[in-house]
Amino acid sequence: MGITVSIIGATGYSGQELLSILIRHQNVEKVFLVSRGEAGKLLDKKYNKVSKKIYPQYLSPDNKLLHESSVVFFATPNGTALNTAKTFYDKGILIIDLSADFRLKNSKEYQKWYGAEHTQAQMLAQAVYGLPEIYRQELDKTKIIANPGCYATATQLGLYPLIKNDLIETNNIIVDGKSGTSGAGKKLEAEYMFCEVNETLRAYAISGHRHHAEITQTLNLFSKTPIELTFVPHLIPMQRGILVTIYCRKKAEIDEEQIRLAFNKVYKNANFVRVLDRGLTPSTADVSRSNFCDLGINVDCQNNRVVITSAIDNMVKGAAGQAVQNMNINLGFNEKMGLI
Amino acid sequence: MGITVSIIGATGYSGQELLSILIRHQNVEKVFLVSRGEAGKLLDKKYNKVSKKIYPQYLSPDNKLLHESSVVFFATPNGTALNTAKTFYDKGILIIDLSADFRLKNSKEYQKWYGAEHTQAQMLAQAVYGLPEIYRQELDKTKIIANPGCYATATQLGLYPLIKNDLIETNNIIVDGKSGTSGAGKKLEAEYMFCEVNETLRAYAISGHRHHAEITQTLNLFSKTPIELTFVPHLIPMQRGILVTIYCRKKAEIDEEQIRLAFNKVYKNANFVRVLDRGLTPSTADVSRSNFCDLGINVDCQNNRVVITSAIDNMVKGAAGQAVQNMNINLGFNEKMGLI
Amino acid sequence: MGITVSIIGATGYSGQELLSILIRHQNVEKVFLVSRGEAGKLLDKKYNKVSKKIYPQYLSPDNKLLHESSVVFFATPNGTALNTAKTFYDKGILIIDLSADFRLKNSKEYQKWYGAEHTQAQMLAQAVYGLPEIYRQELDKTKIIANPGCYATATQLGLYPLIKNDLIETNNIIVDGKSGTSGAGKKLEAEYMFCEVNETLRAYAISGHRHHAEITQTLNLFSKTPIELTFVPHLIPMQRGILVTIYCRKKAEIDEEQIRLAFNKVYKNANFVRVLDRGLTPSTADVSRSNFCDLGINVDCQNNRVVITSAIDNMVKGAAGQAVQNMNINLGFNEKMGLI
Amino acid sequence: MGITVSIIGATGYSGQELLSILIRHQNVEKVFLVSRGEAGKLLDKKYNKVSKKIYPQYLSPDNKLLHESSVVFFATPNGTALNTAKTFYDKGILIIDLSADFRLKNSKEYQKWYGAEHTQAQMLAQAVYGLPEIYRQELDKTKIIANPGCYATATQLGLYPLIKNDLIETNNIIVDGKSGTSGAGKKLEAEYMFCEVNETLRAYAISGHRHHAEITQTLNLFSKTPIELTFVPHLIPMQRGILVTIYCRKKAEIDEEQIRLAFNKVYKNANFVRVLDRGLTPSTADVSRSNFCDLGINVDCQNNRVVITSAIDNMVKGAAGQAVQNMNINLGFNEKMGLI
Repeated sequence: MGITVSIIGATGYSGQELLSILIRHQNVEKVFLVSRGEAGKLLDKKYNKVSKKIYPQYLSPDNKLLHESSVVFFATPNGTALNTAKTFYDKGILIIDLSADFRLKNSKEYQKWYGAEHTQAQMLAQAVYGLPEIYRQELDKTKIIANPGCYATATQLGLYPLIKNDLIETNNIIVDGKSGTSGAGKKLEAEYMFCEVNETLRAYAISGHRHHAEITQTLNLFSKTPIELTFVPHLIPMQRGILVTIYCRKKAEIDEEQIRLAFNKVYKNANFVRVLDRGLTPSTADVSRSNFCDLGINVDCQNNRVVITSAIDNMVKGAAGQAVQNMNINLGFNEKMGLI
Repeated sequence: MGITVSIIGATGYSGQELLSILIRHQNVEKVFLVSRGEAGKLLDKKYNKVSKKIYPQYLSPDNKLLHESSVVFFATPNGTALNTAKTFYDKGILIIDLSADFRLKNSKEYQKWYGAEHTQAQMLAQAVYGLPEIYRQELDKTKIIANPGCYATATQLGLYPLIKNDLIETNNIIVDGKSGTSGAGKKLEAEYMFCEVNETLRAYAISGHRHHAEITQTLNLFSKTPIELTFVPHLIPMQRGILVTIYCRKKAEIDEEQIRLAFNKVYKNANFVRVLDRGLTPSTADVSRSNFCDLGINVDCQNNRVVITSAIDNMVKGAAGQAVQNMNINLGFNEKMGLI
Repeated sequence: MGITVSIIGATGYSGQELLSILIRHQNVEKVFLVSRGEAGKLLDKKYNKVSKKIYPQYLSPDNKLLHESSVVFFATPNGTALNTAKTFYDKGILIIDLSADFRLKNSKEYQKWYGAEHTQAQMLAQAVYGLPEIYRQELDKTKIIANPGCYATATQLGLYPLIKNDLIETNNIIVDGKSGTSGAGKKLEAEYMFCEVNETLRAYAISGHRHHAEITQTLNLFSKTPIELTFVPHLIPMQRGILVTIYCRKKAEIDEEQIRLAFNKVYKNANFVRVLDRGLTPSTADVSRSNFCDLGINVDCQNNRVVITSAIDNMVKGAAGQAVQNMNINLGFNEKMGLI
Repeated sequence: MGITVSIIGATGYSGQELLSILIRHQNVEKVFLVSRGEAGKLLDKKYNKVSKKIYPQYLSPDNKLLHESSVVFFATPNGTALNTAKTFYDKGILIIDLSADFRLKNSKEYQKWYGAEHTQAQMLAQAVYGLPEIYRQELDKTKIIANPGCYATATQLGLYPLIKNDLIETNNIIVDGKSGTSGAGKKLEAEYMFCEVNETLRAYAISGHRHHAEITQTLNLFSKTPIELTFVPHLIPMQRGILVTIYCRKKAEIDEEQIRLAFNKVYKNANFVRVLDRGLTPSTADVSRSNFCDLGINVDCQNNRVVITSAIDNMVKGAAGQAVQNMNINLGFNEKMGLI
């Protein structure tokens, strides 16, 4: 006998990705697909032969059936979980929110970046930031998990060993992010049309991207000196995958061996982080459709320059896969269940 | 009556791009296509209806017919021009070399990066680096032009106004380069197969790329303090286009207005450089198939951070287009002739 | 002194393609860009360095300045030229309509496929179908040219020599069409988002595509027996290019030589049609950005099967390039002027 | 306790796809990766965190360890299984050959299409063609399974209900095939380089493709009249996916309802074939990474024209997925185990 889970926002890209993972998860027995727009409609017949776990009708978020759930995933635009997760939370159901609504501990920061007042102080206080490689110890003691942003995941995993072990200067970090187009979600906007994305390349949000706040919130907790970080994301003509290239300066007395040791020690038991050997660099293809984060380390001792490349699948480790990893940890399942 | 030109390496990507530009150039009357591998073969019949300017047979580089040329373009692997350009040079024919053979003034640097001894000291001494926006005054006084590398073109155009006007700290420059796959040329290597490039993304040459030497050679000429620059290139799943994202620190006393003024002044009369207005960022699609370099400027005064994005078509402004621009300047033609 | 031309619908893909051709056309001196949505706005500054031919402001279609035009191109959705071209037509200005409004001679067919009554009987009667390889003789005697559809161009050029010379059975023709995504225009529809087009493939309009009517209208004029043709288009994950694969049965007494002769004779003097030699098949890359149509011929004598593959750039020979070719013919310019 | 399986040709695309399926297969306990070129080398460290099922060293095909296998998959070029499978076969190990070596029952046909003499008459006689939707009854009674070709799978599943129920004319079938580039395998050939495949489209093998023989071999078994079929494949700028568009004529007395009934009846219990409702057409994205074949049916009664569109993932249902489906059936496992 397995558990019942609900996906709010089931028709979006993250919702679809969650579904594809949950139907092959051994401990999940039933999946409710929730979509305000499709509520009441039968699922497309193509799902009939996919899995018997899927409930054959789209449900409204208000449907009482959802209360059978052990877990409710919010794969929704920012603001939805803020306004509607409380109902489930009050019933003791585990909330895993893939949006940004419970990521920023400081509600003023939330208002600054997301333009809305944060009205759920209690839930926010109890929310755990769902980056298991850093917050594992807290993840099974909460009923609300704030699943990290995609760029934020790749960047934090790349910087955490350096910051935590005081190996780099923290006032001069550059993060050049590059993402496939699914990161923009299923929004119907001219800039994401095939003919506007294919065979082209551009930076966006140069003057400030929302994930900046998440990244520095976490890293500052582990840093002796304030993090000063410039982050510029770029849109790449592909569907999936994020690569962040992180440029920083090591402290002069630190050598390459110490840096490699720090990474290998921090991630030795991490099921989903792979530290590549010297001379290797990650590609997004190597992590595509998997929950892995691959990390490449390059040290230029002459200039004290350290370059970290961090690759994830933005839809998996950057969203749905990490959400299931968080569920597994919280519910005491094998961390890898359902994940590749 | 127009001129005759020869393309050595006519079957490669740069050679083909040169051909497509030269056949629509009003002052070019005849084009010889030179290929050691194809020498003697008739051109594919598909060229018959393309242009009567094209000589209908591939020629050997030794063919005496080439001596009719006013210009010989080398669109060849590194080393070929070094070993064979002298014959044409001695006859007073203008050499435009798209390879790296005459870019580095210091022959030891050449040996370090390209692994071969530089045997043409005289030609090297007379070679002019063909970046017209910087070296225009010297370009009509030489018989040998070293056409810049693609990354080097985009990077130098983005940094030149800042360095020349002493607006930034020069010891802390990051250049994150992103290039379409045609930049690798027509080499048959596993890593450039469709299934290895499509839907993926990776850094390469992290420990040192050859264009680094070109970039610092030029910029150091205009800088009061030594340039210390980290350059990491990335392979993007598209055919054409380069975007470089340049991260540096402005001097504290400089404001955004001074930076914008510097760019606008330097490039006011540049036919092929466009400085974008505040808030705009270039895309490679906007410069695709054209000889333009588009520059976006972003200044974060709080952190003294300056981010420059520079976009070109690697096959045009980064190779064949710039070569024709150089020819136009050298021969006294309208700089824009044949170019878009 | 050159002519003045106007592009109605200047912000769409066909309008942009027209602009890129017209600014390098030697006999064009001034181009007005017309857009109801952008009327009055100054053009983006990026055009400043492109060409001085471009009038620096978007105009309304009602602007009196347009009356200076020798030619007005309609690169607009179906219905626009029908409703607004008369004004220009009445002033003796040449109309070249890239939409379908004047392609079908039978106004009932127009109503059937395009869902609107055809209200311009006089113009329709005088309109010449702008496929120069078939209708050249009539193209300089009209003031209104109906530029063919993209699939229709590729298909008609592939079938015309076979039909005209009575070489095939006409009741059993299959046309499998494959098009890049720019063929759908700049419409903001979910099915044309990058993530919905990339890495996928599907047929559409299986039960009937509008170009069917154009194709049979022309071919029936040259056929002794009625044309019965099945046409199924497919959407391909690329921007530009159409390939149609045409399957038919040759008459038993006809041999391969006769078929090749027919093609070579019909297109001997066609500047933009290339009949490939035996064993060769066209690719859309070979015609990309050019006005060529490449034709491959394959005959299987055992089964009397003939397979014709026909490749064009849907934006050039399938739209803007053919429109300029038509202009050149009508105005007595060199047919190839401005075109590659 | 699960079984041990071996993948011969483990570094190719089909071998890698097999691996990704087998490691999530509940009844598979150990996987040997076999590669003549890599034999003896340790696997890349990146596999360490993937699955403990994978033996950590590439083995030679001669390694005695392989004899522990219950199943040996050949994901090798044509000819390899022919020459080396006997050793395993003689030990009673199940052979599943993804190449063409045991597909054609007539060894002269093999020689004609594959250019080599067929030297394994006994194995050939016992080989079962591994298309479970047609040959299920025989698949658990053999020790050698010839896994079908990718185009052949999509085409046969699209035509089988029509042929078996005598609904169409069999002398006039057109199959227009369209495949992603992974279908060409990992061969290092110029035509499969990124810049030669991206943004282009072409037919290939127009004068005859090897899968033609497989397709007609099967369908003729179920047809009263000989199958005459024209098959032209096309290369599409994407990695995965095959769509075949099948054009045929229904018999005049048959109506659409009878055709739909035939499909629905034949595939009612097929776990991996989905017959789409009227008006729907399959896309390769809908079957990507899954073992499904989606079938669209379009009937034009006026012209007796039937158009079937059939979509599969060429790497899954067209290769590795179908191979595992065959293994599941042969060994009595749940047919869907390990597959999506």
